[in-house]
Amino acid sequence: MSYQPGRHFLQLPGPTNSPLAVLQALALPTIDHRGPEFGQLVLGLLSDIKKIFRTAEPVIIYTASGTGAWEAALVNTLSPGDQVLMYETGQFATLWRNIARQLGLAAELIAGDWRSGVDAAALGARLAADSAHKIKAVAVVHNETSTGALSDIVAVRKAIDGANHPALLLVDTVSSLAAVDYRHDDWGVDVTISGSQKGLLLPPGLSFNAISKKALAASKQAKLPRSYWDWEGMIAANKSGYFPYTPNTNLLQALRVALNLLQSEGLERVFSRHARAAEATRRCVRQWGFELQCLIEKQCSPVLTGVVMPDGYSADKLRAHILAQSNMSLGAGLGRVADKIFRIGHIGDFHDMIVTATLTGVEMGLNSLGVPHRSGGVTAATDYLSSKPALAAA
Amino acid sequence: MSYQPGRHFLQLPGPTNSPLAVLQALALPTIDHRGPEFGQLVLGLLSDIKKIFRTAEPVIIYTASGTGAWEAALVNTLSPGDQVLMYETGQFATLWRNIARQLGLAAELIAGDWRSGVDAAALGARLAADSAHKIKAVAVVHNETSTGALSDIVAVRKAIDGANHPALLLVDTVSSLAAVDYRHDDWGVDVTISGSQKGLLLPPGLSFNAISKKALAASKQAKLPRSYWDWEGMIAANKSGYFPYTPNTNLLQALRVALNLLQSEGLERVFSRHARAAEATRRCVRQWGFELQCLIEKQCSPVLTGVVMPDGYSADKLRAHILAQSNMSLGAGLGRVADKIFRIGHIGDFHDMIVTATLTGVEMGLNSLGVPHRSGGVTAATDYLSSKPALAAA
Amino acid sequence: MSYQPGRHFLQLPGPTNSPLAVLQALALPTIDHRGPEFGQLVLGLLSDIKKIFRTAEPVIIYTASGTGAWEAALVNTLSPGDQVLMYETGQFATLWRNIARQLGLAAELIAGDWRSGVDAAALGARLAADSAHKIKAVAVVHNETSTGALSDIVAVRKAIDGANHPALLLVDTVSSLAAVDYRHDDWGVDVTISGSQKGLLLPPGLSFNAISKKALAASKQAKLPRSYWDWEGMIAANKSGYFPYTPNTNLLQALRVALNLLQSEGLERVFSRHARAAEATRRCVRQWGFELQCLIEKQCSPVLTGVVMPDGYSADKLRAHILAQSNMSLGAGLGRVADKIFRIGHIGDFHDMIVTATLTGVEMGLNSLGVPHRSGGVTAATDYLSSKPALAAA
Amino acid sequence: MSYQPGRHFLQLPGPTNSPLAVLQALALPTIDHRGPEFGQLVLGLLSDIKKIFRTAEPVIIYTASGTGAWEAALVNTLSPGDQVLMYETGQFATLWRNIARQLGLAAELIAGDWRSGVDAAALGARLAADSAHKIKAVAVVHNETSTGALSDIVAVRKAIDGANHPALLLVDTVSSLAAVDYRHDDWGVDVTISGSQKGLLLPPGLSFNAISKKALAASKQAKLPRSYWDWEGMIAANKSGYFPYTPNTNLLQALRVALNLLQSEGLERVFSRHARAAEATRRCVRQWGFELQCLIEKQCSPVLTGVVMPDGYSADKLRAHILAQSNMSLGAGLGRVADKIFRIGHIGDFHDMIVTATLTGVEMGLNSLGVPHRSGGVTAATDYLSSKPALAAA
Repeated sequence: MSYQPGRHFLQLPGPTNSPLAVLQALALPTIDHRGPEFGQLVLGLLSDIKKIFRTAEPVIIYTASGTGAWEAALVNTLSPGDQVLMYETGQFATLWRNIARQLGLAAELIAGDWRSGVDAAALGARLAADSAHKIKAVAVVHNETSTGALSDIVAVRKAIDGANHPALLLVDTVSSLAAVDYRHDDWGVDVTISGSQKGLLLPPGLSFNAISKKALAASKQAKLPRSYWDWEGMIAANKSGYFPYTPNTNLLQALRVALNLLQSEGLERVFSRHARAAEATRRCVRQWGFELQCLIEKQCSPVLTGVVMPDGYSADKLRAHILAQSNMSLGAGLGRVADKIFRIGHIGDFHDMIVTATLTGVEMGLNSLGVPHRSGGVTAATDYLSSKPALAAA
Repeated sequence: MSYQPGRHFLQLPGPTNSPLAVLQALALPTIDHRGPEFGQLVLGLLSDIKKIFRTAEPVIIYTASGTGAWEAALVNTLSPGDQVLMYETGQFATLWRNIARQLGLAAELIAGDWRSGVDAAALGARLAADSAHKIKAVAVVHNETSTGALSDIVAVRKAIDGANHPALLLVDTVSSLAAVDYRHDDWGVDVTISGSQKGLLLPPGLSFNAISKKALAASKQAKLPRSYWDWEGMIAANKSGYFPYTPNTNLLQALRVALNLLQSEGLERVFSRHARAAEATRRCVRQWGFELQCLIEKQCSPVLTGVVMPDGYSADKLRAHILAQSNMSLGAGLGRVADKIFRIGHIGDFHDMIVTATLTGVEMGLNSLGVPHRSGGVTAATDYLSSKPALAAA
Repeated sequence: MSYQPGRHFLQLPGPTNSPLAVLQALALPTIDHRGPEFGQLVLGLLSDIKKIFRTAEPVIIYTASGTGAWEAALVNTLSPGDQVLMYETGQFATLWRNIARQLGLAAELIAGDWRSGVDAAALGARLAADSAHKIKAVAVVHNETSTGALSDIVAVRKAIDGANHPALLLVDTVSSLAAVDYRHDDWGVDVTISGSQKGLLLPPGLSFNAISKKALAASKQAKLPRSYWDWEGMIAANKSGYFPYTPNTNLLQALRVALNLLQSEGLERVFSRHARAAEATRRCVRQWGFELQCLIEKQCSPVLTGVVMPDGYSADKLRAHILAQSNMSLGAGLGRVADKIFRIGHIGDFHDMIVTATLTGVEMGLNSLGVPHRSGGVTAATDYLSSKPALAAA
Repeated sequence: MSYQPGRHFLQLPGPTNSPLAVLQALALPTIDHRGPEFGQLVLGLLSDIKKIFRTAEPVIIYTASGTGAWEAALVNTLSPGDQVLMYETGQFATLWRNIARQLGLAAELIAGDWRSGVDAAALGARLAADSAHKIKAVAVVHNETSTGALSDIVAVRKAIDGANHPALLLVDTVSSLAAVDYRHDDWGVDVTISGSQKGLLLPPGLSFNAISKKALAASKQAKLPRSYWDWEGMIAANKSGYFPYTPNTNLLQALRVALNLLQSEGLERVFSRHARAAEATRRCVRQWGFELQCLIEKQCSPVLTGVVMPDGYSADKLRAHILAQSNMSLGAGLGRVADKIFRIGHIGDFHDMIVTATLTGVEMGLNSLGVPHRSGGVTAATDYLSSKPALAAA
């Protein structure tokens, strides 16, 4: 293939474009995972990653995809046949349900429309009906990456409490952590699941469980077989800065740099930057005359925007066209919205110009492929961004 | 800390020193794990990795440590309570046994002395005694990384066959693959487990299962709960070059380069280079007057040498001294030989001078710490290496 | 300073954004500049760089800035007090004149307006008047980087020939080579000067002289003292792939990759890509209602666009604002147009989206700083780019 | 060619093995050489580089090889026909003389034996004889890279002063700076020349002039034509952190890291480390029974060791053999000692094990090529290094 000039724009809702400093750290020579330098590195990481989850409790780092951390949250807290209540925000909530079933849990998925976040009231009602407290855990996705809808975790917590239900609360923040405000302790979450390849600025390969005291207590009774995912051995080894088995040392070296960058920018500015980009993107999409996949304005995700294609036009053809024309990858529609929507990522390491470049890339694709749309989309985004100054540095 | 000049020598039996070309590939921007470029990459990897395992059957690539691939081999082939027969070659065989138990298997470990490989006759006798065929799998470590003893897998296969026993044969090649001759198909192995961070020249983070037809058939009946490790979904998704969940894309990009380097050097030359380095190292150690941890000459590992410290001297103090003095990491004694032995890695990307540098680093450490030893160790290694030409390029 | 997220956009008319593959090659370990591998590398480079200059004659590679290659062209061909005829296309033509004077040459600069290329007729008239042939060289800038005007070298050659004048023709292509069609041999140029940091995709640090037979003959008589810049020693050493003194080995390693990328894309596509970006940029600027610094449409540069600020507005303030707001560097006005114009680079390794991102960055800067302009600039660029497909791969 | 495993050992007396951190900084994206970040970078570099030269006077950074800085020292201080007194320590002193002649200076080279440093008494006698003070400059090489002899600059200064001679003192420290103690101000040097690719840990491409007040005054009168090398424009532009023409931005970014590393290790420890390595190397060479090229013990260079091959054996064949066998480059004999000596570099970023690895590589080459030598060379080096602790960190 002939050289395609210019940097690729990876505008997925993750994996995201890692900063060069992070990639350079990833390429540092591997160090001895049993040596003193490594122990110091890990103690620092374990301490600083807690600030990202907003927790004082242990955070486990797995050498695994986010999917592994889903499994870890379940096998550490539950026993065969346990009931888990989930909510169908989209493809990722559905996949998590499937995993729960594969592991022998009785997973129940409250049907959703894939166009909004968790309906906390519906959850609450279901829990209230469970007077025998057979439901052992409620598992929801904070930011549904397949649609672009953000759920209100505080409302979910209130729904559980309102039902006086003892179920654990498990929350997937794979695509929201370090990009959207999230508070493990304050919001009363028992296990928070996340991954490295989105707001945390790394390539895929690390994933996380933040663990409440209640979850840790539950793990002492949980009977699902587990070894790789076992919290106990991890927590014990982590105390001195080591792991029970060889971890992905180079991603940990890169995580050090990623946390430094996030701390340097400041989480508040990070969150504000994502929200800004999302608003600019929505203004552009609306100006084109396209529907957002997320129907509820205040639930629209700060990190990605799902865009519904006009009837009769293939989202996948548009993406393929843009990839060839503009060297940019966009997110595909998944599951039941395959080929019907495409997803624009505005997450990770970006600034305004990358947002507008992304939108011009889409606009040029719509133009040259002849997909009917109103003009002025990018201008709407540009006008918004220039009128609203970014949050100043502290 | 003030800058310690010169490159660090990571002379562990893994993780090993990755070639710069591999590290640079690791640092390439992450690509879309659902895009066409990625699919092409993965199809090529899945095809070429088979040549390393010497198999025509599927090889699964996990985003996980080698420990995860141990678990994968068990959960895909066995059911709760199944009997597994193992052999105590050292720490890693013991850890694998522990994992089997954590997963609810009835794991039996034939006691070994940590100074030799698997006793195939003992295995065979145990299997012959199992006339009811309650033992469902035999699981052994090809190269015991904690001691430096290499087991004869062909002999193990013969022992199983000699006992007319239907047990599956599971073999851990984490520290031997791509460094020592190994043949999944020819040797009749059912599941071969391996990892990225040793002979495969990568940092940790990927691990592997090569799967025989018999193992695949067994997986259809196996009842241990599994999701992340499940072969079926992997094999299905791999057919088109994709994964059921986001894999460690950057390690896969680096694996492409690592496989290219191995193919360029040629596996025969790779194996010969390791054997040469091991022989030079043993000559040096014997000249010092130290015992090898592996007592049986023909079982001494080509990839690491376990060295027994003289009575009254701490191996860990020596390693710490060498780390400070010479910027080199050596492997620690693990488990029951902690502080009693140290391990010299000669595995991965190295040449003769790196072997002799490693040995001079140890010799300088012995000298300056006053550990009694005969002089002439490095000279013995140098003499051997200069008298025996390396295998010429094809 | 807090971390500024997202990649910096270096939209200068050089140095340009080097591709990551080029930067990674730059970071490869230095090799022995007297060893066999290096000799092979250099022979390949010297052969392939000729294809970029479109010459069969020697091309010299200096470890120096482009400014050094200007000096080299003069000191190798001229003697103290020699007359040189130059044309004031802008700042860089003026600087070259200054250098000629510093070296003791009688440099004459035909006055220009900084808003167009070389007036070949004026040059021809001056040469015709020089019946004694005291003028030994005509020295012009192909692409005047300070204004964005491209000169017609064929016309210059015709003017010299039309005057039957024996003067050498020296042409600066620092900011045009490998971005704009250029033909050293066909166009009858005697010395072509260039640099690494623009179309050649490298950081600064290498510069070039392509040398005609006539120029080489002149160098035998030229009396200006010279050593570092001396062609003779270079040409002699280059024959076997070496240099008379230690060259910038790492930039040469990176040049190998840069030439590979240019060959892979194909020069025709490279030129077309630059022309396309320039047209899109001009449409945007005109839509804003701003004047182009280059007044003659067909002379407008394919690699940069000089934009005149509205009266009363500071170009430097705009650039500083955009740097802070959008993490983008634009080119400053130089010399007599300092603070009056800014320069947008569209040169090197880029694609359409980088062009539109650059323009949105400027548009957002104009908006938020309140610089009066018509809206729709970026839309004009986007419309053009989506209506005109890029040149397809061969 | 098939892959040659293991890192290349570049054991030349320069270019040296750059630390990975330096190479990674070299590969950072190019920044705007007229922007604020760059100005800050350069001001810091210009300040810190003075500490390396031990001067409070200006240091100029050229985008050029060290050879360019030789030329710069001459053209800025001298006029056509001026007499320069030099001393033939070896090939590099001779080359500098040639350059002086090419530039039109009357360069006189006091004959030396290529086996020792400058004979200060001979210099003094020649200066004393120059009662008319026609000699305008004395130019000597601090560390003669072609032989491995270090000259006593304090003695040279005394010889000039003893003769009451006003000549400028120009000193080449290309291969000694940042590796051997050197003091521009204290030792009364007028121009110190250096380069980036040795003790300064960078690849080639930058070179330096440190300038005394007396030299700066001389430059006002010096008549040799100059532009690229002109101090005046450089000093003026440097005041605000910029350059009169585009410098090698990426090498400057890497210089920042290199200076940080040197400061972190501390110059005293750096010097001690080089001296230690040189002593170990000489002990090894003597044990082999080979002659050192430098005949005077206290003049033996801390940064390289020239080794005389036994009669009838080709040094170049040995080097080629070692390159193929051990992936190591050694320095060739140059000029009149071509093929008669080889040079072992122990300069830049190294530690003890790299020194001993280098020596074992040579020893293995001698063994396998059958070059007669006494055994025990490496042992002698190892014994010395282990008995003499390195200078502790401050």
